[in-house]
Parts: sequence; C-alpha cells; structure tokens
Amino acid sequence: MIEVKIGLAQYDPIIGAFKHNMAQIVRLAGKARDEGCELVIFPELAVCGYPPRDLLERKDFIQDNLQAMDRLMSEVKGIAVLCGCVSLNTKRAGKPIYNTAILFEEGKVLAKVHKRLLPSYDIFDETRYFEPGTGSVPVSFKGLSLGITICEDIWNDDDILPEHNYPVNPVAELAEKGTDIFITINSSPFDIEKAAFRYHILSHLAVKYRRPFFYINAVGGQDCLIFDGSSMAVDRTGKIMAQAKDFTEDLVTVDTDALRGERHIVSASKEEAVIKALELGLKDYTTRCGFSKVVLGLSGGIDSSVTAAVAAQALGPENVLGVIMPSPYTSEASIEDAEALARNLEIRTSTISISDIFDAYLKTLEPVFSGKDRNITEENIQARIRGNLLMAISNKFGHLVLSTGNKSELAVGYCTLYGDLSGGFALISDLPKIMVYKVAEYLNSEGEIIPKRVLTKAPSAELRPGQKDQDDLPPYDILDVILEKYLEQDTSPDRIIAEGFNPETVYKIVQMVDRSEYKRHQVPMGPRVTTRAFGYGRRYPVCHGYGRI
Amino acid sequence: MIEVKIGLAQYDPIIGAFKHNMAQIVRLAGKARDEGCELVIFPELAVCGYPPRDLLERKDFIQDNLQAMDRLMSEVKGIAVLCGCVSLNTKRAGKPIYNTAILFEEGKVLAKVHKRLLPSYDIFDETRYFEPGTGSVPVSFKGLSLGITICEDIWNDDDILPEHNYPVNPVAELAEKGTDIFITINSSPFDIEKAAFRYHILSHLAVKYRRPFFYINAVGGQDCLIFDGSSMAVDRTGKIMAQAKDFTEDLVTVDTDALRGERHIVSASKEEAVIKALELGLKDYTTRCGFSKVVLGLSGGIDSSVTAAVAAQALGPENVLGVIMPSPYTSEASIEDAEALARNLEIRTSTISISDIFDAYLKTLEPVFSGKDRNITEENIQARIRGNLLMAISNKFGHLVLSTGNKSELAVGYCTLYGDLSGGFALISDLPKIMVYKVAEYLNSEGEIIPKRVLTKAPSAELRPGQKDQDDLPPYDILDVILEKYLEQDTSPDRIIAEGFNPETVYKIVQMVDRSEYKRHQVPMGPRVTTRAFGYGRRYPVCHGYGRI
Repeated sequence: MIEVKIGLAQYDPIIGAFKHNMAQIVRLAGKARDEGCELVIFPELAVCGYPPRDLLERKDFIQDNLQAMDRLMSEVKGIAVLCGCVSLNTKRAGKPIYNTAILFEEGKVLAKVHKRLLPSYDIFDETRYFEPGTGSVPVSFKGLSLGITICEDIWNDDDILPEHNYPVNPVAELAEKGTDIFITINSSPFDIEKAAFRYHILSHLAVKYRRPFFYINAVGGQDCLIFDGSSMAVDRTGKIMAQAKDFTEDLVTVDTDALRGERHIVSASKEEAVIKALELGLKDYTTRCGFSKVVLGLSGGIDSSVTAAVAAQALGPENVLGVIMPSPYTSEASIEDAEALARNLEIRTSTISISDIFDAYLKTLEPVFSGKDRNITEENIQARIRGNLLMAISNKFGHLVLSTGNKSELAVGYCTLYGDLSGGFALISDLPKIMVYKVAEYLNSEGEIIPKRVLTKAPSAELRPGQKDQDDLPPYDILDVILEKYLEQDTSPDRIIAEGFNPETVYKIVQMVDRSEYKRHQVPMGPRVTTRAFGYGRRYPVCHGYGRI
Repeated sequence: MIEVKIGLAQYDPIIGAFKHNMAQIVRLAGKARDEGCELVIFPELAVCGYPPRDLLERKDFIQDNLQAMDRLMSEVKGIAVLCGCVSLNTKRAGKPIYNTAILFEEGKVLAKVHKRLLPSYDIFDETRYFEPGTGSVPVSFKGLSLGITICEDIWNDDDILPEHNYPVNPVAELAEKGTDIFITINSSPFDIEKAAFRYHILSHLAVKYRRPFFYINAVGGQDCLIFDGSSMAVDRTGKIMAQAKDFTEDLVTVDTDALRGERHIVSASKEEAVIKALELGLKDYTTRCGFSKVVLGLSGGIDSSVTAAVAAQALGPENVLGVIMPSPYTSEASIEDAEALARNLEIRTSTISISDIFDAYLKTLEPVFSGKDRNITEENIQARIRGNLLMAISNKFGHLVLSTGNKSELAVGYCTLYGDLSGGFALISDLPKIMVYKVAEYLNSEGEIIPKRVLTKAPSAELRPGQKDQDDLPPYDILDVILEKYLEQDTSPDRIIAEGFNPETVYKIVQMVDRSEYKRHQVPMGPRVTTRAFGYGRRYPVCHGYGRI
C-alpha cells in the first residue's frame, strides 16, 4: 500500500470551549507533524466536544463552532487533518445541521463526510439534532482511498449487532466502492464491556472486508459520560497494529505501508479500567465545574471508603476532606475504620457529631409527631442532617460534595433523598454493590488502603440499633444479578423467574425499583460504568401503572 | 356529504395501566354508541397512554399492549373505533414498533395507519422508539374517505411552521388522494400558547385543503406533561363545529352531513387555563403516586400562597397541610399572611419554629466554621431545615411534599437544593414570577383568597435581616423577559442586548442561568406550562465551557 504516516490523536475536549479546544487540536496536530505524520485524525465532534446536547439548538453555538473550524483550518500547517465538526444542512428539509468529518490540508477542505447512522437509544439523542448523511464514497488522499465513517456508522453489522437494524450500511457501501483503509472517528462512551466489544467489532469488520481499520475515540469526562480513548488500528487480519492508552490524552502513529504503529499500554483488568474511568470522570467534572477540592462523609463502610480512595487518587489527598458524623447508633468500629482509611489515604478529616442537631429535630417535631411510633422518618432525619452538614461545608469552603451511594441501593431506593443522596457528583452510583467490593479489593492489591474489616463486616446504614442491609434487602449477590437482568437487559419479571429465581424475591425487587423512580429523578449525576446506567440513558415515567393497575 | 355521526372521546389514560385504560375506552365507546355514533375516536397511544418513554423498550410492555388491543377489539360492540396503539414493525430493518392508529369494527381491523412524522425535539423522543410509517392513503369508512393522521403528521405546513422541515407532508398526500374528512389523533401536551396555535393550524389546514378537520387530544397529567384535551372539529371554512372541554374527560359528537356538533365550554383566559392545568397535573400526579394528601411550607409569600390555593382547589382543602416555619428573620406580617391564607382556603396548618434546630446547627458547626463570616451558608441551612421538616412530616404521615419555587428563581438558581427545592412535585416551577402574580390575581377575582398584602409586598426569602429578592436579582419584569428570550426562544445574549437590554444585566442573568444548571439537575418535576420548560424538554450539559472558556 502507498506509504502514509497517520497520527491518531485522542484528546479531551471541553464542550463549547472553542478557544481551548482549538488550542489543543493545533498543539496535537503540530506534535503529529513533528513525528512525521502526513495526516492526523481527531475524534467525532472534536471541535465542540461531545455531547453538546441542546447547545446544538442554539444558533450562536453553531456559528461559533463554524468560526472555530475556520480558524483551525487557517492555523494548522504542514499536515492534513481529519476532524469531527458540526456543519450546516443547506437544504430546506430536515434538521439544520450534520455531524461531520472534515478532511482539510493547508486551509483547503478536501472532503466532508456526514454521519449517516444517528443513534437514538440509551444516552444518544442524535436524531434530535442532526440530519443524516446520504451515500458513502471513499475519499482520495495521497493516492490512498479512505473509507471515512463516524461512530455509529460502523455499528450496523448483521453478524454481531442483529438488533441495530439500520436500513443502510456505510461500511459495506465504502468497501464496494474501493476503500483501501477504513477510518472511523468516534466519541464513544465507556462502559465496562465496551473495550472488548469494540475490538470484537473492529477485528470482525477488518476481516470481513479485508481492510485495515483505524479507530479514533475521544477521551475525557463529560457530565455522566466517560470517554476512554483507547484509539487503535487493526490490520486486515484483525490484529492490533497500533494502540493508544485508555483514559488519557494520547497520540499514536501508524504507517499505512508497513501496517505497523505504536502500541501503548491499556488497562489489564475491568477493575483497573473502572477505577481509571471514575478518576477521569471525577477530575474532569470537578475542575470544569470550578472546584479543586471535594468533601464526603466517611461512615467506615465500603461505599464511602471506595469513593474516598478514588477521589484521593484522582485529585490528590490534600484535596479530599472526609467528614465523620457519628450518631448514637454509630459503632466504635465504624469510627475506627473511617479514621484508619483517612490515615491510609492521607486525607484530612473532620468529626462532627449529629446528636445535638438530631435531638433538636426530635424535640421540635415532638408536638407534631405525638403518639406516633419511631419509624423510617427518624432514620431519614439522621441521613438528612449529614447531607446538610456536608452541604454547609461545601457552601462555606467551596468543596464539591461527593455522594457515596452505589447502584444497587439507588436501584431499590435504599437511600435518602436530600440525605446520603446529597451532592454534586455521585462517584460510584453506577457500580453495583458487588462491583464496589471488587474495586475495593483491586485498590488493596498492592497494600491495604481500605481497612480489611470494611471489606468483611456486614453492610449497615447504622440508622437504628443493630441495623443491617440484609435485614431489608436480599443478599447482594442475588440482588445484583436480578437488577442487572431487569435494568440492563430489560428482562421481564416473569422471564427472570423462569430463569430460576425466587418469585417473591423478584417481585419484591422489581416493586422496589419501580417505586423509587422518583428518588432517581432527583439524584446527583455520576459516571456511567455499566452497559445501562440511571440518568438520561434510562428514561422512565415516574408515575405509571405498568405492572400495578 | 354522507351522514356519519362521529364521537370524539378524550380520556385520561394511565401509562401502562392496560386494564384500567381498556375499561375507560370500552365505557366511552359504549356511551358514544348510545348517543348514536357509528364511529368513536380516541387519542394517540390511547391504549398504553402517552408518553410511555422507555417502557416502550420492554418486550413485555409491548406484548401486554398488543393483548390489550386484542381484548378491546373483542369487547367493543355496535360501534367502530379509531384508536392509538403501539403495533409491531415486522420488517427486518428499523425500530421494532410503530405509533399506530387502528380502525376496527366488530372485532375486525379495517385499517392501520402508522405515524410518519416522529417528533424529536423539546420533550419528544419518538425517533428513539418508533419506525416512521411510509405513504398515506385515505381509509374508506361507510362510504366516507377518511384522511387519518397522528399528531405531528399535521405539524408540517410551510406557511405556518417553516422550521418544521420534514421532507414529507402526509396531509398534502391525503388531500391529493381524495380525502373527505381529515382526522388527527393526538397526545399533544399543553402549554400556555398551545390552544390558540392549535386552532390556528387546524383552521389554516381546513381552509387550505377545503376539508373539515377532526382533532382528538388526550387529557390528563403524565409526570410533567399536561394534556389539555380541547378536542375539536372545524369545517372547511375553519369554523369550529364541535368543541370538547379542556382539562377533563369529555365526549362530543359531530355529524358529517350537517357538519354540526356539540360545543362545550373551554377556558376563557390564559390564567384560567394555567390554573386548570396545574390542578389536573397535581391531581393526576398525586393520586397516581399513591398519595391523597399534600404538605407544603407557607411563608406568607406569593409562591407558597398560589401553590396552596391551587392544591386546595385540586385536592380539597382537607387534603392540604400548610406548615408555617418561622425563624428569627421571619416578619410578623409573613406569619399573619400565611395564617390568613390558610383561613381563606380552610386548610389545616402546623407552626414549627426552626430556631432551635438552626441554633443546634450553628453550635455543631462552630468549631468547623471558626473564624469564618456568616454568608449564604447559614441562609441555606435555614432553607434545608425547612425542607427536612416537610420531608419528616411527609415520611411520618404519608403526605406528598409540594415545593413552591417559581420558574424565574429556578432559572437563576435563587433557591436552595435540598431546601426549598425539596419535594415530590414543584407545582409552579414552570411559572415565571410575573405569571405567578397574574394567576394570583385571577384566583382573587371572585373574592380575596390570597391576602392582598401578599400581592403588594416586596418578595423576600427572609433568610437574613431585611433581605429582599430585588437586592440580589434584577426586577422581575425585566428578568422574566430576558429569561423568556434566553430560555424559551434560544436567543443569544448578544442578540438580546442588540434588542435594547442592558448588557450587564443580560450577562449577569445568563451567567446565573448557566451556573445553576446543576441545581436544575436535581429538582422535583413540575407541570409544564410555558413553551419550553426545564426538565427533559431542555437537555443541557451541566459542565460546559460555552461562553466561559
């Protein structure tokens, strides 16, 4: 094949920060040029960042995006650039913009390719904004025929994605028209299964169409989405010939003649990837919201321990404040464990008893509650006092509050609105409880960070004497499996039971999930880790009668 | 024209409550038959309710919907039914379901028409679920040629909706193919401009195509959406020949030969419509979430007064509990006004001082805050104590908490997360402050319900001595106009300034709006009233750099 050295440049755009983004693209293009590349490739919507969501409906945003693209074209010298950008649909009909890949060199546009398959499922809303492109034709560059696609365009293969039933197949069309190399630019969000599946698709397509595939992905945290980078190139046998790092900016080069490139190291396990994802998500969210420090409650339990450990790694221990907030129901062991964790992490702590405030609430409410037994109300008051204290510290010192709940709790509503659900970022809210334990073990693999007792004692909210999670919930190993089926795979309760689970347990869990939809409507966002997270990727009515009336 | 008596049956489905919904449809079909109708028409997705959102991705939900439709077909006798329902796309490509209008009689399907124009903007997500229909052909019924469309299908007229640029026009196609009467079934959510605009479109299309138009709409509150009914039929001159009530179930009949029907009364003013919308939204949300009673804080201000007044009308005064929660900063006048309001409304009240709890917070936090001045932190603590007290009453007595903030506050973030933003339903959260005053005046039009002083005194949060909203915010008459331009019309700050507004004020407001996105991410839902509400109709990134970096 003709020899062209290509750079795959994965970078971390900030949505709508055009000046900042242009500076990064120019810098990385210069670096690729200096490394001898003739072409450097950036991710989908690299100019404005992904996903800009309803900013795309603003004319000023689109205009600024076009101007940034113009500036970029005039600033990059000595190398061709393929880069994702919004462009205008000048036809009368359809949505007003395209999701476009622009190939330019020395200020001149060589080609524009519009995304054809627009995802509208899970977290994707692309039909809300974009008009699909029509027809796919390879683009000629230095004598090479490039088959350029954008993200979803390649996710339409009958063999491995039978449920993605788009009526057109850009990859097949490009192959037919004589493509030498496939290039796909992406802003493809991380989930725990994504890396393996992505390589599966790429290698499958490379083998099927007997062409090398170049895959460029964005990196960074955008609200609840984490982009993991992991850009790569595979040859026509499906073998990886270039690999960029995951969860960080990177540039790798590939030679189209030798079909060889640089291979950087990526995460070796799912746990490692999850931790890197959480760190990246937290760091980008925190800094982009204008914070440098975070505060969280340390209960001595596994959830707050993992949250604190990841935060300390991501932001530096000096930027993490752990608040220990004992009540009369808090065990000595919990306080010891919280303090031991803080020592291990070298984070600051503050201990604030909630007893006086709790007493004041009980006394104030006495006339209103007279004759009523204590119940979950008094448990929630304790959780809300803790939430309020953290928010007070946040307000006074400008720390971002991290909430510490996991996905299993959030799923069944085993958590308190305005209490432990308070915060700006819910770091492990998409980690099922069992995954939290696995991550904790991984964090401890090179020496104890999280005190061993935290991993072995029975989980408890400690909101009443002797309380244990397992008094109120099925065991987490059963709970998590049923939740995954119901929430991630949309399996019906009847079908889950048919698979051998106890009907009473299944119905109880399903009912708890359905009834706590209102809580999830008001929770802080957190980074998406599983194949289906709560948040805008799962859009359920709060009030509905399905399965009830 | 051939004489057929047609009933327009607007009813209030519960999403996914198939048994309940079928019973309502059978009942109304029977009523229409008894009134001599040969055909009765129900709204879009009448079988499952609209919008079912991601329930549409569940196979069990679709299956139950199909079975309900089968049962319905076997149960309705003596009258033909046109009714909205999900149906299967049996082709290999595309989304797996259609949004369909089914015409059936005596257990036999006479026609199926699939929705062609699938809205994906604002609160609509239809491309997420549905495959669009292709081609439009009139349906023959008793010798009449019916041009059947579904909701958005008629919202594609070049003359009045130039921005709705769908490449096909079902109405024009049907007119060409010899339609006698247009029938459009809808689940079209209310906003304050909708009734006038809807009539404008219908009359325009009737005149343009010289055919009568039958318009059937759903009624009811589904989470944040209110469906206002207001079904109608217009003749070929655009004159209304039949009109159903707004905001309640109704059945009106039209004779296709005489082109005359029943005309029921609808709201005479925008304020009347808004109040009815809030009442319906609150009633449906409350009962469907399993509550009969609500609780709210009464501050003596305009927002809580209007919220309490609407709640008392919607649910009955015996089901509304007003909690007066004075602090040292609460004026005597505020307490008097709150008490006077409660007397006028005949609702129960409870007075709970927050002083002791506030003192306990200050004392507990003293060591942590030592050396720091008082600031907004202490204001937020008060708001959060009030939120927690309301939640405690909710937890103990099973009342739904109504939060009382208005849209202007929510827009600029002049509100406290986990404080006044606590609650299950934010009744007036889509009413700009000026609209709150107008609604209050309307409520008082037949005698004082809201004490006069509440309408005349300067708004204050009373969280510090002598505080007034106008110390922190521009005057509401300017604020609301700028907010409408920025939020509802997507006007850029530069353009707003070019229209003559003070640049400093505009930039300040825009910055406040942008910076409080994180608050709106965690607020309770409330009924949509304006043309663009917060919530899932406005999807903004929380972290972004647009206009900042």
